[in-house]
Amino acid sequence: ESNSNLIRATLFPGDGIGPEIADSVRQVFKTAEVPIEWEEHYVGKEIDPRTNSFLTWESLESVRRNKVGLKGPMATPIGKGHRSLNLTLRKELNLYANVRPCYSLPGYKTRYDDVNLITIRENTEGEYSGLEHQVVRGVVESLKIITRQASLRVAEYAFHYAKAHGRERVSAIHKANIMQKTDGLFLKCCREVAEKYPEIKYEEVVIDNCCMMLVKNPALFDVLVMPNLYGDIISDLCAGLIGGLGLTPSCNIGEGGIALAEAVHGSAPDIAGKNLANPTALLLSAVTMLRHLELHDKADRIQGAVLNTIAEGKYRTGDLGGTSSTTDFTNAICDHL
Amino acid sequence: ESNSNLIRATLFPGDGIGPEIADSVRQVFKTAEVPIEWEEHYVGKEIDPRTNSFLTWESLESVRRNKVGLKGPMATPIGKGHRSLNLTLRKELNLYANVRPCYSLPGYKTRYDDVNLITIRENTEGEYSGLEHQVVRGVVESLKIITRQASLRVAEYAFHYAKAHGRERVSAIHKANIMQKTDGLFLKCCREVAEKYPEIKYEEVVIDNCCMMLVKNPALFDVLVMPNLYGDIISDLCAGLIGGLGLTPSCNIGEGGIALAEAVHGSAPDIAGKNLANPTALLLSAVTMLRHLELHDKADRIQGAVLNTIAEGKYRTGDLGGTSSTTDFTNAICDHL
Ligand SMILES: CC(C)[C@H](C(=O)O)[C@@H](O)C(=O)O
Ligand SMILES: CC(C)[C@H](C(=O)O)[C@@H](O)C(=O)O
Repeated sequence: ESNSNLIRATLFPGDGIGPEIADSVRQVFKTAEVPIEWEEHYVGKEIDPRTNSFLTWESLESVRRNKVGLKGPMATPIGKGHRSLNLTLRKELNLYANVRPCYSLPGYKTRYDDVNLITIRENTEGEYSGLEHQVVRGVVESLKIITRQASLRVAEYAFHYAKAHGRERVSAIHKANIMQKTDGLFLKCCREVAEKYPEIKYEEVVIDNCCMMLVKNPALFDVLVMPNLYGDIISDLCAGLIGGLGLTPSCNIGEGGIALAEAVHGSAPDIAGKNLANPTALLLSAVTMLRHLELHDKADRIQGAVLNTIAEGKYRTGDLGGTSSTTDFTNAICDHL
Repeated sequence: ESNSNLIRATLFPGDGIGPEIADSVRQVFKTAEVPIEWEEHYVGKEIDPRTNSFLTWESLESVRRNKVGLKGPMATPIGKGHRSLNLTLRKELNLYANVRPCYSLPGYKTRYDDVNLITIRENTEGEYSGLEHQVVRGVVESLKIITRQASLRVAEYAFHYAKAHGRERVSAIHKANIMQKTDGLFLKCCREVAEKYPEIKYEEVVIDNCCMMLVKNPALFDVLVMPNLYGDIISDLCAGLIGGLGLTPSCNIGEGGIALAEAVHGSAPDIAGKNLANPTALLLSAVTMLRHLELHDKADRIQGAVLNTIAEGKYRTGDLGGTSSTTDFTNAICDHL
């Protein structure tokens, strides 16, 4: 049944608008003759005790086996006693780096036209340790954990990425003037790795100042690497500069060479099933997956077709001020291929 | 010697450009006939054991006595075993709320012309607890502490401020989806206070989403209240929207009705003593001090004169693209009074 010339990749269409935008990716990949065979997995209807979440054990095994995957939005069902789907994926697959290329889209006007940066977020520890407790009534604490191992790992990835993509500079974002031990350790690890990459410039920027510089002049930045929470904040800030999460690709890198690309926007239940969703973030995320597989020709063609379709402006979905359906927009992209 | 019709206020000119911009405030206040008598204090040359910092005990006593003060930039001398000057002031004077009005300056163009918001930052706890330690080699942790007392106190201030200033809405900024206990307690306190102010709208916004919304459309926000680190980040982000820290006023509110206004920019040692510094942030901070004293007429006049001088554009300092000296700019403001 399976064609041995094809690369198998896991596909999580996700909830809400997920299946529609996943259809769009399937159509575009088919038109571009991308040698990928999808292995689809849906979020389960019940908690799988092996994952303690609605994610099935089989779906995690699929990503582990294929090493590449694409994920649509997943709303975590409400209720207690199980983990968020996104956090479970990060933990179970050890997705240690979240990488988001963020660039101004030609022809889609925001207040910024000069954004071209990459945020690389440590994705497993820091403020996301989940360790919290009440000390006494009215006094609670959360633990932020920084380890040498995870900091080196994400720093290595950032410099490796910078070199592989011809980038000039890596900025480590921190608040070590206040959190001298935790953020201090993070910086120490970044410095150690920086020494191995003399051709890449290295700098350290305090997070408050970084946010100010980003909104004043994002062109000052190239590759940014940072602990979990700062990455959460700054990657969304940067998405805002170019128009929002509906336009921003994201890819998670895990131990053992896993790459799980994902659209980081929500599942938009209000417009689900209405053929109104914008598939851009999922398509551009799929492009980062292709780049991870070193299928750069296919990646370039698809990225070009998406960007040209948006730039022309004839076919745009509602969120970008247009009136096109998901399928019209997708067909227009395929015509550009 | 002291005139009993005058209000005594502590003045910390600070370091670097501090004395020059403090001169500018003195001149403008004199011209506007503000009934204030300054009591000046400088940062000591040695560590005062009573404060364990370069701040003298007398200077802290002065603020405690006068209850109002104005502070220029203070660079913390390098070395170990003493505390940062800014953090010492916050701790010793229990400056629990940092308030920053942030509005687009007419005639001074940035990418945004529609900013008109207030950030209110909890200023004493959270990630700034100073509690950190190494668990084992290569594993360090920092404690974030949130208390009911400090959260209620800053929430009360935020709603009080919103009401007193005719603001419509308070947004509590958090990451309670991850830090359910700490940020959860912060939100719980905000909700309790919100119930006492039915005339003020209340909403909760996750910090990553907040930053994205701020860069896309800052006009969505009115008054923002948040824990320490988020306040640090968001208040600088907001300053960036309107041109930077050189233009943004700040005021710290302490227990017992203390108000210590401060310019939050650096001491710019490179241009110190050259009559090149921009006194705007210190002047507008002094205005917030006047409002705290309910000297609204004087506050309005000075704020108007500063904004009109910048709007006219004939006299602007180098950081705003002009060629005026500090004294030319200050004289121009006085001419507008
Ligand atoms: C939904 C939330 C738990 C998540 C995070 O905080 O990491 C999201 O903001 C993200 O960036 O993927
Ligand atoms: C200098 C630094 C310790 C300080 C802070 O983090 O609070 C500064 O960024 C501020 O906002 O006043």
